[in-house]
Amino acid sequence: MINKLIRKIQETGAPIVVGLDPMLNYVPEHIQKKAFAEFGETLEGAAEAIWQFNKEIVDKTCDLIPAVKPQIAMYEQFGIEGLKAYKKTVDYCKSKDLVVIGDIKRGDIGSTSAAYAAGHLGHVKVGSHTYAGFDEDFATVNPYLGSDGVKPFIDVCKEEKKGLFILVKTSNPSSGEFQDQLIDGKPLYELVGEKVAEWGADHMGDGYSYIGAVVGATYPEQGEKLRKVMPKSFILVPGYGAQGGQGKDLVHFFNEDGLGAIVNSSRGIIAAYKQEAYAKFGPENFADASRAAVEAMIADIRGALEAAK
Amino acid sequence: MINKLIRKIQETGAPIVVGLDPMLNYVPEHIQKKAFAEFGETLEGAAEAIWQFNKEIVDKTCDLIPAVKPQIAMYEQFGIEGLKAYKKTVDYCKSKDLVVIGDIKRGDIGSTSAAYAAGHLGHVKVGSHTYAGFDEDFATVNPYLGSDGVKPFIDVCKEEKKGLFILVKTSNPSSGEFQDQLIDGKPLYELVGEKVAEWGADHMGDGYSYIGAVVGATYPEQGEKLRKVMPKSFILVPGYGAQGGQGKDLVHFFNEDGLGAIVNSSRGIIAAYKQEAYAKFGPENFADASRAAVEAMIADIRGALEAAK
Repeated sequence: MINKLIRKIQETGAPIVVGLDPMLNYVPEHIQKKAFAEFGETLEGAAEAIWQFNKEIVDKTCDLIPAVKPQIAMYEQFGIEGLKAYKKTVDYCKSKDLVVIGDIKRGDIGSTSAAYAAGHLGHVKVGSHTYAGFDEDFATVNPYLGSDGVKPFIDVCKEEKKGLFILVKTSNPSSGEFQDQLIDGKPLYELVGEKVAEWGADHMGDGYSYIGAVVGATYPEQGEKLRKVMPKSFILVPGYGAQGGQGKDLVHFFNEDGLGAIVNSSRGIIAAYKQEAYAKFGPENFADASRAAVEAMIADIRGALEAAK
Repeated sequence: MINKLIRKIQETGAPIVVGLDPMLNYVPEHIQKKAFAEFGETLEGAAEAIWQFNKEIVDKTCDLIPAVKPQIAMYEQFGIEGLKAYKKTVDYCKSKDLVVIGDIKRGDIGSTSAAYAAGHLGHVKVGSHTYAGFDEDFATVNPYLGSDGVKPFIDVCKEEKKGLFILVKTSNPSSGEFQDQLIDGKPLYELVGEKVAEWGADHMGDGYSYIGAVVGATYPEQGEKLRKVMPKSFILVPGYGAQGGQGKDLVHFFNEDGLGAIVNSSRGIIAAYKQEAYAKFGPENFADASRAAVEAMIADIRGALEAAK
């Protein structure tokens, strides 16, 4: 799957991923109205609204991008109905040949991590049959519990040729509270980065590992350092756009081959029509605004990578 | 909710929680057969089997115990159908007046943590209506992302009078890989414990905080230390029984008031009928074996607490 991700990045020339993190207040009123007319102002109605919203954005952007990253929390808040919309979104994106990164940030120990891994990346056995639960291509994983927590995910990834992005240095302001703490002069995130490189060496694709890392765009210096600590790991970079990151901050997240990073934008793309720059599209054409925002993001990052050559 | 948990611990004299972490191979054949006859060897069939299994254990133990801790991963592995069984289990346990600790180990940043918190402990707004998604009483949370990640959960807990157990020192063998790393001579778990105490001071019940911690029974020395670092935080203690912890190891997780800790056992209770000690019950009476195992666990912990007085 890392090989497919790289191939699609090369085909589209776009090392970006669209974060499908729909808040209900991002969804234009005409879509909410239609969904509520059909299902009422219920959890089912909310789920229908975010699914229709996603679908239109995917339809209007899928030829430009290699991947999407649905954030499961935004669906889980609507309970079972929300998770059905998550699953529909995963399946629909896969039908459009997009790589799906499930932003699930799961992490537990032993058989419990194995259960998460089976549910999201693998299969479960029921009697003599085998089923896939959510079936994303990649998943994000929290490393706080150590190797016991991560290895069961890697085992499933090996079987299924799927991959992980492990939280190393997150994009939020207080990420340093624990992640930046110095251990023998070295920050914790670097120690986690070293582990990612070690785990990743055990599950390599053609040029890069199936086991990647999450490093926030808001921490470009740390990104540059971590790029060297984990040379064969793809870095998933959140925090572009709405959280403050820009193309020029991202150059050092990439390797000299122009690969090695994939930059996420969520709100900046899916709620683009709410920004002044794209207001001309209007809520009715929200997905055209998303397309324009994708094009601008690709140009920004390509420009920054060119300028750095 | 922390007050209710304490009241129920005092009423039952049992500072324990039963972990409802059903693997399909724990479910006796007669229950699997019945579920598969009705729904086929499908995800729905598997979900029905684990739900019926849970229900019988809850019916046979609910008068002895204050709380249950369903592990969501074990349901999530069966996709949407599994999560429906999770929700049914949560609701059923609440109808039996048990405190429900959702072992979800979620954690993200800002609006994403807020979405998880709304979905599991709070409410979401849909149009002019308000709904609860999963509606557990407590949830476990991963602290790796720092205060930004935890505070949105605490905000929801304040509104809803619900609580958290934050991962501090987990029970698994490799938990030390990151958690034991020394920062200015102090292990990371202690730093996290200090934060738990700080966060908890901001949301107090009558005697204890709504914000507790997870510390594994397999690390009694660390438990003793952390008990002092977080004097007002309840400690949820996994790792008893199947993972190796015993009553005598647990004494120092408690305060002198006999409170402050609640010990979880999952496999040791729910799959008790598979152990030699309870084999006499047979698979047909698996829930009676669970009841006997609960009684033995309570006696072990009570005895250890008495002996330590």
